[in-house]
Amino acid sequence: MKFLRFGESGSEKPGLLDNDGNIRDLSSVVPDLAGDVLANLDDLKSVDVAKLPIVDGNPRLGPCVGGTRKFICIGLNYSDHAAESGMEVPPEPIIFAKYTSAICGPNDPIIIPRHSEKTDWEVELGFVIGKKAKYVSEADALDHVAGYCVINDVSERAFQAERCGQWSKGKSSDNFGPTGPWLVTPDEAGDPQDMHMWLDVNGKRFQDGSTNTMVYGVKFLISYLSQFFTLEPGDIISTGTPPGVGLGQKPPVYLKAGDVVELGIANLGTQKQVCVDDA
Amino acid sequence: MKFLRFGESGSEKPGLLDNDGNIRDLSSVVPDLAGDVLANLDDLKSVDVAKLPIVDGNPRLGPCVGGTRKFICIGLNYSDHAAESGMEVPPEPIIFAKYTSAICGPNDPIIIPRHSEKTDWEVELGFVIGKKAKYVSEADALDHVAGYCVINDVSERAFQAERCGQWSKGKSSDNFGPTGPWLVTPDEAGDPQDMHMWLDVNGKRFQDGSTNTMVYGVKFLISYLSQFFTLEPGDIISTGTPPGVGLGQKPPVYLKAGDVVELGIANLGTQKQVCVDDA
Repeated sequence: MKFLRFGESGSEKPGLLDNDGNIRDLSSVVPDLAGDVLANLDDLKSVDVAKLPIVDGNPRLGPCVGGTRKFICIGLNYSDHAAESGMEVPPEPIIFAKYTSAICGPNDPIIIPRHSEKTDWEVELGFVIGKKAKYVSEADALDHVAGYCVINDVSERAFQAERCGQWSKGKSSDNFGPTGPWLVTPDEAGDPQDMHMWLDVNGKRFQDGSTNTMVYGVKFLISYLSQFFTLEPGDIISTGTPPGVGLGQKPPVYLKAGDVVELGIANLGTQKQVCVDDA
Repeated sequence: MKFLRFGESGSEKPGLLDNDGNIRDLSSVVPDLAGDVLANLDDLKSVDVAKLPIVDGNPRLGPCVGGTRKFICIGLNYSDHAAESGMEVPPEPIIFAKYTSAICGPNDPIIIPRHSEKTDWEVELGFVIGKKAKYVSEADALDHVAGYCVINDVSERAFQAERCGQWSKGKSSDNFGPTGPWLVTPDEAGDPQDMHMWLDVNGKRFQDGSTNTMVYGVKFLISYLSQFFTLEPGDIISTGTPPGVGLGQKPPVYLKAGDVVELGIANLGTQKQVCVDDA
């Protein structure tokens, strides 16, 4: 199933995408795609989709999950991207935080912060925790996944790397976390280690990769992260980006107002963002 | 005023401490000490405290603020602590994230994670955002503070510094963020740059400092942070620790099950935690 959230920022309603591409309103069935609802998405398979109201028009899509307390990003998790960044593949996962206030809808504008000169893009496979996970084995890890989604891990490279660390400083500006359009359940998403992913800026393809070159895969990451803290329903883990970010171009290319970023992952849908200056 | 939250973890009620040291139940007045309530704490000055029900017994205290989306820590923000850590005072603030799932009550146990050998303490002055802040000046910064509180920035030094970074990995284990007991409004807290602070382990004083040796003060930090992202009601900023952490001892001293940690800041109250192994 493909779940989504629609409506104004901060007051999104839960919905799903039916087989004809209509948005159906799920708010009579669940209050939100958050918390314990995420631990029991299978229960929603019995919902008679045809009886859910079709949402008219073309509503704004919000982030495909609500109530997120941890947005965990994995650094340098594609060997080619590490190389273009001039970094080694780390011997264990680098994790860093994107503050959850950065989360936004998949097609909301990328807001370029004041004084930014190096706002950059990163298409990433995200997954969302369904059932709480603490000290879980790799064998049991995938039982804790509610679903998968597209993430643009928008990054300001100067804030991230030239302003006294840590990376969160360059990863957490408002709207730096487009998430969605859909939360795709594992049965429909397919193998998370074999997904084509791409990102274009102004129609030019910059990233064109596959999760099959990911260093630390989804199963390993869940087990690994759960050694440090409890993963909770709604937590988002963004698994790193393949080559082709702006920083890796020769010379580097960064986003400016008016640029259009489009990105997607096979089976998980696409995002489209217009860049704007922060007023 | 001294606000607090009491009751079981996850279902705390808002309260306040009256002049006789009683906890008064505020839940008939506000739903929680979270969100917009924090932007309007002054409105609660007109509440007739004597008419609020006294809470009987000795309830658990929860974190003194709810709905936190960002827990922002400032690294190496006391020159003496930087020296004991073998680091330079940074030319601008180091910020790192503690995941909000680490937040707990001021007297909840410190849970030592499995495989931890270097769990450490840090008494810190925390402040909580009341009114939203974006691109604010230092002159206007303090208008955005709801209040001040004690924080123990519990840290696992090996996870933080020996496990491939970033620091969040060693700062975010469950219960690594005791916050409270009280959220003290600025008029009662006094000058945030002149507060005595201390921390004892098993009755031995390890930290004994003052916020007057803080490198980047509260006003500066609010203005600085608000250049990178919007500070929202309920966001917690923990301003760094003075000398005397376990890592800085010769030889280093780390926490083990059964140890008792007590800490406090003048006017802001005290915390007491017993260390336990994660089962």
